[in-house]
Amino acid sequence: MNEGWTRLGLIAGGGALPRLVAEACAADGRLGCVIALQGFANPADYIDPVVRTIGQFGHVVKDLRAAGCDAVCFAGIVTRPDFRSFVPDMEGAKLLPKLLGAAVRGDDALLRVVVKAFEDQGLKVVGADELSSSLLAPEGLIGGEVDLDAHRGDIAKAMHMAAAIGTLDAGQGAVVCDGLVLALEAQEGTDAMLQRVAGLPENIRGTRQRPRGVLAKRPKPQQERRIDLPVVGVATVEGAAEAGLAGIAVEAGAALILGRDAVDEAARRHGIFVVGVSAHS
Amino acid sequence: MNEGWTRLGLIAGGGALPRLVAEACAADGRLGCVIALQGFANPADYIDPVVRTIGQFGHVVKDLRAAGCDAVCFAGIVTRPDFRSFVPDMEGAKLLPKLLGAAVRGDDALLRVVVKAFEDQGLKVVGADELSSSLLAPEGLIGGEVDLDAHRGDIAKAMHMAAAIGTLDAGQGAVVCDGLVLALEAQEGTDAMLQRVAGLPENIRGTRQRPRGVLAKRPKPQQERRIDLPVVGVATVEGAAEAGLAGIAVEAGAALILGRDAVDEAARRHGIFVVGVSAHS
Repeated sequence: MNEGWTRLGLIAGGGALPRLVAEACAADGRLGCVIALQGFANPADYIDPVVRTIGQFGHVVKDLRAAGCDAVCFAGIVTRPDFRSFVPDMEGAKLLPKLLGAAVRGDDALLRVVVKAFEDQGLKVVGADELSSSLLAPEGLIGGEVDLDAHRGDIAKAMHMAAAIGTLDAGQGAVVCDGLVLALEAQEGTDAMLQRVAGLPENIRGTRQRPRGVLAKRPKPQQERRIDLPVVGVATVEGAAEAGLAGIAVEAGAALILGRDAVDEAARRHGIFVVGVSAHS
Repeated sequence: MNEGWTRLGLIAGGGALPRLVAEACAADGRLGCVIALQGFANPADYIDPVVRTIGQFGHVVKDLRAAGCDAVCFAGIVTRPDFRSFVPDMEGAKLLPKLLGAAVRGDDALLRVVVKAFEDQGLKVVGADELSSSLLAPEGLIGGEVDLDAHRGDIAKAMHMAAAIGTLDAGQGAVVCDGLVLALEAQEGTDAMLQRVAGLPENIRGTRQRPRGVLAKRPKPQQERRIDLPVVGVATVEGAAEAGLAGIAVEAGAALILGRDAVDEAARRHGIFVVGVSAHS
């Protein structure tokens, strides 16, 4: 392989994704170290992780260099800090003015500053999907065995809504049922949004007995795609089923599927679908 | 007064608005009858209401005529029915194909069909604000005594987000804190959205001790404004305070304030603001 790097440091947030990335990278023999972000990652998920807070930029760069890393991958859930009670180390403090300036412009601007800071240290920033191409959602049916024809309208509208709120840098997910927008995702995250849909009146949503409606997840059109691609896992499938949805749509090539077999099995068990849709369809 | 009608029928949904409308209209001696929609309105709020389901279009028109009404006002919260288990009367059944066609295009299309159906019966459809101009939000500080300067950025961004999701026919409300979009409203309603914000991590939102962030509510730019203007009442103020927000912004002349004095008192008590912002500012 010749991707311009030899050894990778994983900066791990919450959820199941960073562990899959660590496994894929370790299997290649290219995992230099794991930085488990305090309050987000579970250190027990990794072998000899370094635990750091998100303010310790200088320490993290030293950790990466000490482990011989020339590349870095961000994976997993991290919520933005309250910059008024943020405790950076010395290098982190130098970044603070830029971070504060970007923060008010939105999440995407903030992530770009973080990416740029690591690149300025000579580290290549690598997307999780580049480490394990099996993570990336393909086009077509990914999970379940449902005839999609009855759901084309909701799939298209939910994908449109997700793109629209992404353009606003607000979120990546939307739920549509029979043309009605049931929920738009912002900082609560997909799981909480699905729980909210499960609590809506049954006259406007589906049920487990009669599923209808679609969750769409797609990246913000303008976002830094090496960080924060939308993720669908077994928990997403279960949340969607609980909310009475008929299925989940993601943008093909721009979403991560955490465990294809497990997602397919869960989708079949719950009688719902997971589908990859071309961005241009 | 010469507004082209003499006697009004109020079609009441849930919440406090329809009762205020009934009182304002009764004080003028122009209230012909109240139709309390079953499952939404509390019939005990009204004197001699007629209780009807939302499918009983033919009965409602007859009720209005029997009471000598030549105008009708829709006020209060109504969620859309599940048209697959909808039980209309005979006149309601005639409307059903149009309703079904509109439903998949969104709430606004659906409301336009309902308005048109009443107009086709020779009834004038009147907005709640036309019955009681004191309900309409003015420009400037409506509640509280907070210096707005520190909050201009969040007010502008939250108003922008609310307009954007309105353009999508998804909802009327948005919450922004220090430039970050915390929540977008769809079918869950404002109160549930504020509860959700109250549950977000404290690092990205305000607290009662250090309020920050703004809830904005404004009509969908393209919506039928005689039905479904955004509403702010004491419960909204309390929900916003509970969510740690600094205040609430509405579009001046395009939102209803339920009890100006009570809203101002609640805003002062909680140390937050309610402000009317020009649509063009």
